Amino acid sequence: MSNLDKKPYKGCRDFFPELKRKQNFIFARMQKIATLHGFEPYDGPMLEMIELYKAKSGEELINDQIYSFVDRGNREVAIRPEMTPTLARMVASIHREISKPIRWFSIPNLMRYEKPQRGRLREHWQFNCDVFGAPKSFGELEVLQVIKNLLTSFGATSEHFAIYINDRKIVDALFNALNLSEEKSYKLIKLIDRSKKISLESLDQAADEILDPKQKKIFLNYLQLKNFHEAKIFIEENLNLADIELFDLVEMATSTSLSEFLSFDPSIVRGLDYYTGIVFEVFDLNPENKRAICGGGSYANLLQIFNEPALSGVGFGLGDVTLVDFLETHNLLSDFSKASFEVFLSISTDQALNSSFHLAENLRKMNISVEHHPNPVKPKKAIQIASKKGIQKVIFIGEEEIGKNIFKIKDLESGTEKEFSYTDFSHIKEFLK
Amino acid sequence: MSNLDKKPYKGCRDFFPELKRKQNFIFARMQKIATLHGFEPYDGPMLEMIELYKAKSGEELINDQIYSFVDRGNREVAIRPEMTPTLARMVASIHREISKPIRWFSIPNLMRYEKPQRGRLREHWQFNCDVFGAPKSFGELEVLQVIKNLLTSFGATSEHFAIYINDRKIVDALFNALNLSEEKSYKLIKLIDRSKKISLESLDQAADEILDPKQKKIFLNYLQLKNFHEAKIFIEENLNLADIELFDLVEMATSTSLSEFLSFDPSIVRGLDYYTGIVFEVFDLNPENKRAICGGGSYANLLQIFNEPALSGVGFGLGDVTLVDFLETHNLLSDFSKASFEVFLSISTDQALNSSFHLAENLRKMNISVEHHPNPVKPKKAIQIASKKGIQKVIFIGEEEIGKNIFKIKDLESGTEKEFSYTDFSHIKEFLK
Repeated sequence: MSNLDKKPYKGCRDFFPELKRKQNFIFARMQKIATLHGFEPYDGPMLEMIELYKAKSGEELINDQIYSFVDRGNREVAIRPEMTPTLARMVASIHREISKPIRWFSIPNLMRYEKPQRGRLREHWQFNCDVFGAPKSFGELEVLQVIKNLLTSFGATSEHFAIYINDRKIVDALFNALNLSEEKSYKLIKLIDRSKKISLESLDQAADEILDPKQKKIFLNYLQLKNFHEAKIFIEENLNLADIELFDLVEMATSTSLSEFLSFDPSIVRGLDYYTGIVFEVFDLNPENKRAICGGGSYANLLQIFNEPALSGVGFGLGDVTLVDFLETHNLLSDFSKASFEVFLSISTDQALNSSFHLAENLRKMNISVEHHPNPVKPKKAIQIASKKGIQKVIFIGEEEIGKNIFKIKDLESGTEKEFSYTDFSHIKEFLK
Repeated sequence: MSNLDKKPYKGCRDFFPELKRKQNFIFARMQKIATLHGFEPYDGPMLEMIELYKAKSGEELINDQIYSFVDRGNREVAIRPEMTPTLARMVASIHREISKPIRWFSIPNLMRYEKPQRGRLREHWQFNCDVFGAPKSFGELEVLQVIKNLLTSFGATSEHFAIYINDRKIVDALFNALNLSEEKSYKLIKLIDRSKKISLESLDQAADEILDPKQKKIFLNYLQLKNFHEAKIFIEENLNLADIELFDLVEMATSTSLSEFLSFDPSIVRGLDYYTGIVFEVFDLNPENKRAICGGGSYANLLQIFNEPALSGVGFGLGDVTLVDFLETHNLLSDFSKASFEVFLSISTDQALNSSFHLAENLRKMNISVEHHPNPVKPKKAIQIASKKGIQKVIFIGEEEIGKNIFKIKDLESGTEKEFSYTDFSHIKEFLK
């Protein structure tokens, strides 16, 4: 008894109503945008066998970040740290039976053992969209559209965010040109991954440890590429690579408003993840909050671990924490502090309780949301409480009303008051508009 | 590599789109009904410190059913098996600052280590509604209304389900009258809990082991009580108990349509849970599926473990698995096999791809959901695919349309076809109605 903590578990959030309304609003928007783009909803279990992650995810994730344990049946299981392995398992089990492309979205809660900090918590929700079996660049364009249209639906513009994009095939060709061992490639990809976060000096030094002077020069030239045009020239001059999907995608994007958000970024490689083609990250352009809101890319071999034939895919994950940070940084979210029920139903005597329960039931049948106040209060007090809660319409039932077998409703904004009888209040809908 | 299982973890579900659409539909309905009744949304973490459950839940839950483990920081944690302890923690932390009554609802995913069987899975979602700080019977009536109105919103009637109700104060008074030791009380409450599931003979035998003949007679008389009237007489004749909340509640309920669903049931005690007053269970009346859809009750001391003053409350949990079983048993759910996007957008030549991306973007801006088919197909084939998917409107862009700088849309139901130019298709909304 007694010394129980009232705080949530480290890195997790308690969603009190204001926060939960905000989250519901954001989830509803994700669902709406995904549906507009022809994505169907899916979900999977909170727990998976750990083998699934061992086969699929980066080592760091398994070793340092996963919540795993042995269940009562001696199975080693893990709380899902990301959705892609579950998605791959599900698609592997039915992709032969359904028509392509498969467009699926989900908003699961995930757990990672992270050191809690701004934008990173142990539990978060993540909007996942994936397309399987679409022709080259088609699925890529669609998922990028979903991200762009989600963010712009809140009012964000190309002044607020950019989509930094690259192609793992360019990176692979670069590594081929540099003729690197597997070990050095591994180190170099890690270095590219963090190149924007370290000083030029550290970058230089780290590059010296992996590359000879000639290699290093090419590498640093690569990292300095600023746009698609420079990238094209660099590739022509240095790499043995034709038919670059990235440039096809950029070309296709010109028929939509996506173009103004796309920017070439040689440092986007998405680490040691399963990506094999296009890779991208969406960045907040506010210098105070310069972080990735979302990342994703194309993968060719996601089903391989299930012994299934290759099925090309592309997808992204967008976390609720980083999204809200982004939206709030740019003042793109409204106020969620009020519950916004339509009617505050109050009584000024206990004798009115039966009438008020009867009325509440009938209003709800008419799809009117009612906060029913249990304690008898004077009209003035009822108005006070309702105002504080942001409810505009207040119903009173007091002794006078009981005597006349009516109830009164007041519009707090206009001050108008109207009486209704219990036998006919169908017109109340108009009063509530 | 290779032998990875494509099945979900035991007792968990993969939600492929059809199943997820069904779940989304049900969740949206729960959210709507809760909101109509003035409940605000909340949520908590997937993980809690195990102490919270040790302080709050039944022993069986902790010993046999909870998913617990030690985290990397050496904290003993558990995946939430129920929502009430989290709710109690959250309410304990803020109840002093907010106005009463507090009406909150949530639809969390929960894990219990159960033997998977019909109606019971390891992972399920549970609709939770609770009211804190309402006057006697008021909160009880409200949560019962939510349950009743949720089920009737799907078309269920009093032929499909009943709410069996009891009052723990009656059970306590019975135990006082029988003058039982704590140990015997414990055994007897367990026996009441399972009395409907065992034969009369076993019941008789089990009662003999706990009670003397005189006690047993009273006990069996209690168990045979059929309705509120019989209960009233039994209490007057045998127990020392006045001001029975249950009867106040039943009286209040007469002003609403709740009455026809309420039925006295002496066997409802809700085991060793934290309930202190009204207890209830909602039962499917179909003899093939005679199981509880939902259970709940009133508790006076939920905040005690946090050293907070008593705050009366009442709530229920309603699982998604049992709810869907109930609705499907009675044929109260529609078909969720189709995605129901509004427009199927098809091209018959790759040259149309840019136009189709441009058009898709603009239709979505008008809030029209578009499934964009990537591969060039003949109009006939497009109609076939769209029909199979249940999409009624099909747009074609072929060579002819490109030449005329238009697109065609066909209503598969009426057979009507219409042409639109890209520069003015605002009237397409009317065609889509």
